[in-house]
Amino acid sequence: MIREKNTMIREPKITLVGAGPGDPELLTIKAVNALKAADVVLYDALVHEDVLAYAQPEAIKVYVGKRSGEHSYGQDTINKLMVDYALNYGHVVRLKGGDPFVFGRGYEELDFAAGYSIPVSVVPGLSSSISVPGLQQIPVTHRGLSESFWVVTGTTASGQISNDLYEAARSKATVVVLMGLGKLKEIVKLFKNEGKHQLPVAAIQSGSTENEKLAIGIVDTIVELVEEKGIKAPALLVFGEVVSLHPSFQPIRDFYQALKEEL
Amino acid sequence: MIREKNTMIREPKITLVGAGPGDPELLTIKAVNALKAADVVLYDALVHEDVLAYAQPEAIKVYVGKRSGEHSYGQDTINKLMVDYALNYGHVVRLKGGDPFVFGRGYEELDFAAGYSIPVSVVPGLSSSISVPGLQQIPVTHRGLSESFWVVTGTTASGQISNDLYEAARSKATVVVLMGLGKLKEIVKLFKNEGKHQLPVAAIQSGSTENEKLAIGIVDTIVELVEEKGIKAPALLVFGEVVSLHPSFQPIRDFYQALKEEL
Repeated sequence: MIREKNTMIREPKITLVGAGPGDPELLTIKAVNALKAADVVLYDALVHEDVLAYAQPEAIKVYVGKRSGEHSYGQDTINKLMVDYALNYGHVVRLKGGDPFVFGRGYEELDFAAGYSIPVSVVPGLSSSISVPGLQQIPVTHRGLSESFWVVTGTTASGQISNDLYEAARSKATVVVLMGLGKLKEIVKLFKNEGKHQLPVAAIQSGSTENEKLAIGIVDTIVELVEEKGIKAPALLVFGEVVSLHPSFQPIRDFYQALKEEL
Repeated sequence: MIREKNTMIREPKITLVGAGPGDPELLTIKAVNALKAADVVLYDALVHEDVLAYAQPEAIKVYVGKRSGEHSYGQDTINKLMVDYALNYGHVVRLKGGDPFVFGRGYEELDFAAGYSIPVSVVPGLSSSISVPGLQQIPVTHRGLSESFWVVTGTTASGQISNDLYEAARSKATVVVLMGLGKLKEIVKLFKNEGKHQLPVAAIQSGSTENEKLAIGIVDTIVELVEEKGIKAPALLVFGEVVSLHPSFQPIRDFYQALKEEL
């Protein structure tokens, strides 16, 4: 078979693709089609390796993973790699965990590519903020319990927790914190400061994958529970009454009910 | 070919499936697999008919659509239909627009099925709250502009706008309002009350489908723009500085910049 591919001049093109929370079956059909058509795939740390199997065997696959703490590639390098590959090889799929625009710095990549007049399209992915609680049958909204949900990053550009978290802790929204596990004590303190000691909380590690782990408790107990269960990053936190709908919460509710009756 | 299907006793089973914002290619592989395995599909108003083509031709397809204002089926009826079909026909896929747990009343359905000891699993879908702005290349988060996003319903059970919207209008979060078009004037007023007259706003109708329409302006102009462009439900609203990243916003920015320099 003649490999014409390498000798043709190919149009540079970038597709920002969200790979969802981890489970390769949680990719969209559109994402799979983009991968099938890719000449190059630049992928992140949280992308499941089975997802790469959707790409052609001859496609170039480049790991540009960043993990909290350990930055193997800076954002500038990723931007440049992406454009270089597009100019030299054609269609680059930039594959990002979750959705490209939920703390994914996707817009920075899109903007950088636009500077080189390379056309960019976007294929949204399932954000873990909604889908990971959902797979645990914890609804981010539920009549009578929550009319809204607020998704906040635990780790901002400056390394501090987001100021938005102070307000979120005060609100009646379901609060979902991404990349917050390393700041769990600090975040929990915000809820304690609002008197929400018994607000239900879930911490979910590696949602939708074989490494999924869950801790369910309340603001006062979640730090201890997370340690006990050995929950590690990547993990997300859900603060809100909706967490009480999870079956594991029933014994906790019963315990506090019994305590109340004793007093 | 012998159709054994109808003579076998089939295990009742329910799968709550999110169909995403509209484009049939934005279904996940897992959702397609659930549809292929379904004996019955109960689907909503906002589900694109091409999505139903993923189901077997012999699967029973039942429209149980609700639209704001026009409730063809109440939630109780849908719950009962779902359980009846599962008990009589086996695997029911309950196909809902977006994600089942984002104002989808998915948990109520799950809970009702649990009362009949019917096993329920969940396949999350792309919520329009993130994916529809994303497809317009409006990121719900962006460094320097937004560290969080807050998703609120415009129409609560009582028919009033959610109280959470008052707080959301005060916050620095990107605020995404679903089912809020009918209350646009009221919602805009909340932002005006906070002095946010020039906050960028987008209204997007039927995102990801052939009927997609977009209006981009600021708090002070969005009501007029929505009328001008003939934007109808289903539509979502995005309030936040991130909207200024959309190319259509540049002329608006230039106009206000010029105005400022004149004053």
